[in-house]
Amino acid sequence: MLYLIGLGLSYESDITVRGLETVKKCKRVYLEAYTSILMAADQQSLEKFYGREVILADRELVETGADQILDGAQEDDIAFLVVGDPFGATTHTDLIIRARELNIPVECIHNASVMNAVGACGLQLYKFGQTVSLVFFTETWKPDSFYDKVMENRKIGLHTLLLLDIKVKEQSIENMARGRLIYEPPRYMDIATAASQLLEIEEKRQEQAYTPDTPCVAISRLGSPSQKFKAGTLKELSEYDSGEPLHSLVMLGRQVHDLELEYLYQYVDDKEAFKSFVEKDQEFFKPPPYVPPEDDMSD
Amino acid sequence: MLYLIGLGLSYESDITVRGLETVKKCKRVYLEAYTSILMAADQQSLEKFYGREVILADRELVETGADQILDGAQEDDIAFLVVGDPFGATTHTDLIIRARELNIPVECIHNASVMNAVGACGLQLYKFGQTVSLVFFTETWKPDSFYDKVMENRKIGLHTLLLLDIKVKEQSIENMARGRLIYEPPRYMDIATAASQLLEIEEKRQEQAYTPDTPCVAISRLGSPSQKFKAGTLKELSEYDSGEPLHSLVMLGRQVHDLELEYLYQYVDDKEAFKSFVEKDQEFFKPPPYVPPEDDMSD
Repeated sequence: MLYLIGLGLSYESDITVRGLETVKKCKRVYLEAYTSILMAADQQSLEKFYGREVILADRELVETGADQILDGAQEDDIAFLVVGDPFGATTHTDLIIRARELNIPVECIHNASVMNAVGACGLQLYKFGQTVSLVFFTETWKPDSFYDKVMENRKIGLHTLLLLDIKVKEQSIENMARGRLIYEPPRYMDIATAASQLLEIEEKRQEQAYTPDTPCVAISRLGSPSQKFKAGTLKELSEYDSGEPLHSLVMLGRQVHDLELEYLYQYVDDKEAFKSFVEKDQEFFKPPPYVPPEDDMSD
Repeated sequence: MLYLIGLGLSYESDITVRGLETVKKCKRVYLEAYTSILMAADQQSLEKFYGREVILADRELVETGADQILDGAQEDDIAFLVVGDPFGATTHTDLIIRARELNIPVECIHNASVMNAVGACGLQLYKFGQTVSLVFFTETWKPDSFYDKVMENRKIGLHTLLLLDIKVKEQSIENMARGRLIYEPPRYMDIATAASQLLEIEEKRQEQAYTPDTPCVAISRLGSPSQKFKAGTLKELSEYDSGEPLHSLVMLGRQVHDLELEYLYQYVDDKEAFKSFVEKDQEFFKPPPYVPPEDDMSD
């Protein structure tokens, strides 16, 4: 059996009781270690908590070494641990499809992920549209496909969750070219970088999917002991010191409810200013008023 | 301290290790018992698992008795247990705001909910639009506000999660009128009812937000030992026997990826037929081809 087990967001003890029982009985335990991190735990503390060895699975092993992970899983139980939920933003569909091909049964033990825990900021989950990802820009590579998705969400009034880039175990171009297995230190996009990149693309596209005055919520270290929310305009957040990773950003939609706003006010510097930015933003994205069709007078 | 603790989807042991430790140390433990149920546990089995008393909190207590729940929480720890995640589709914002007014610190221990675990069906979570709720129709009350939201999602190609009605501790109109505290047996909407209600509204509105041929995924008992997925058209699912509750429904969006489809094929009766329904549905919702504006020839 292959068990996909969600670890939740932060602590070793964010694993479910059923998840922990399963880890303890498995023959091998892999930890997916390249799409996210646990904020208050690492491989060593997990090994101590579980009382057993945990094998780090990097991108290469997961994407090309599925058969190695699944070796013997017809008879033995293998655990594959994923930060958040196994079916979070990144799914491990390939591994599951490969297991099925090998007639290995698969069971998933779910957990919280940013995709549902983001509700803790006070915005209603059911009013979120599609989720977008923001990658680190380079001098020559500034992908902006997220822009159209944000526009689509905002045209129909929905909130947008923006997932911020994480770079773990990346090689510099020089090291890659020379075949040197030297890795750069991990990088986690912070709120100011995300907001600045968003503003850069708006300046280029000029289609007003959002403006520097668009209200957003910065979500830092969600579910960890130092979790923090900060609400402000994109311009304000482009100068915000969000501290240690991990971070996500939510851009408000026009459908925001008074009760949601009331909840957000505890995270703003200036309640009246924030409220006026919300109203201005809502006004901009209001659908045009309904105009009944004129009678056909042609005959 | 007020602890909001998510219980996950099904088993007693779906609570996190940190959640369980917290329950054990709290002075009083409430279980929110009207917006959802644990599929493989009940009040009694939870009390046994926690080794302590669990107080059922019905809608009345939560909505009007917040001060009773929060009594003494300035000094003592109180746990409020919620099936799924505390910030799931139903948020308990009122209770949190009241706690804040009383200067009671609030901590949330997250867990999986249908809002993120739905990814287990194989569709990518980041391509879901806004979530809609479907309530039981009566002879005289058939609310269809969900219809416009489904249309909005589908126009931009997104999947839609439909949450199905749960009626717990409801009084009949007669009993309510006579002030008799007699409650109807609980009712949980099944897939066939949901699909039929959707078709009834499409027949009335005729705006083709979807058709009887629109491909959907029926999600039954998500995260429980008898979890089951079934993919088919709305028409097919209107005759599907989905078994024991709980159920949710997902309507596919045009953005569906080949890898998602590949995953869904294991849940269909006829792969080729399903594929052709998906293609037909995608064609219908394709954006119109881009036509460049004509040159202005007037001068």
